[in-house]
Amino acid sequence: MRKFIKTIIAASTLAAVAGAACAEAAKSEDLIRWRQSAYQVLNWNMERLKANLASPQYNKDEGAKAANTIAAIANSGMGSLYAAGTDKGKGWHDTKVKPEFFTNGQKVGELAVAFNKEANELAKVAATGDAGAVKAQFGNLGKSCKACHDDFKIKD
Amino acid sequence: MRKFIKTIIAASTLAAVAGAACAEAAKSEDLIRWRQSAYQVLNWNMERLKANLASPQYNKDEGAKAANTIAAIANSGMGSLYAAGTDKGKGWHDTKVKPEFFTNGQKVGELAVAFNKEANELAKVAATGDAGAVKAQFGNLGKSCKACHDDFKIKD
Repeated sequence: MRKFIKTIIAASTLAAVAGAACAEAAKSEDLIRWRQSAYQVLNWNMERLKANLASPQYNKDEGAKAANTIAAIANSGMGSLYAAGTDKGKGWHDTKVKPEFFTNGQKVGELAVAFNKEANELAKVAATGDAGAVKAQFGNLGKSCKACHDDFKIKD
Repeated sequence: MRKFIKTIIAASTLAAVAGAACAEAAKSEDLIRWRQSAYQVLNWNMERLKANLASPQYNKDEGAKAANTIAAIANSGMGSLYAAGTDKGKGWHDTKVKPEFFTNGQKVGELAVAFNKEANELAKVAATGDAGAVKAQFGNLGKSCKACHDDFKIKD
């Protein structure tokens, strides 16, 4: 597991470096605005799925769309939006990332792997249309979001 | 084709209604902020793909990630973010949608179908890693973005 995490972190770092190289024209404020936007797309789809699960008749297609969008954001390679120099600054608003995010790669890597796993599992479960299973996996995903917020997001 | 478009519009309307019903707790300002965020995620991935295509060595994996994210947003069902009452208002900023967007469903439907088609084709082409084909399809997608901006987005 340790080696696996190390490999993931190395791969993420490489991807971030490649991403940063590709996005050399992008300014810090763009990167921060884009990552804040990506979290808002997650927020939209979590709220939409929550409302769907709370409605009298769970809608399978709507649920799958929400879950697929969440998984796509999880798989998008957001690491490149955390390039050096984006620890402070303003996108839509001042970044809420804690400085530790940029110095504790091991922990960030673990949380990112967990989030990806839960998001992809949600998409898989949502494709079946089993509302109970979606609800359970929605909870698992929410926990993985919270774990990262607890450690690396400045409280409002 | 006409019947197909009508079916798409009917389906989109149904999805929008279902989405609106699901998201009954969502306020107009949330819906506007979420759609502005979704367009920013598109912007991020278009810029990222453009930079990748302009770099000396096109990166297939990076390109596929960008294209898949674009396709996922295209397939996410953004119609529900244009619920009644969101023709005016503020998300991250005042909405730039023109009033005609809400009264010309036929045209909006056609543009949405075209955008979806080009986005899904981009994801398919990006999976092959053929930089030339990706570049051509990137151009086609850009045209479908512009067509909608020309008709329905207030100029800055």
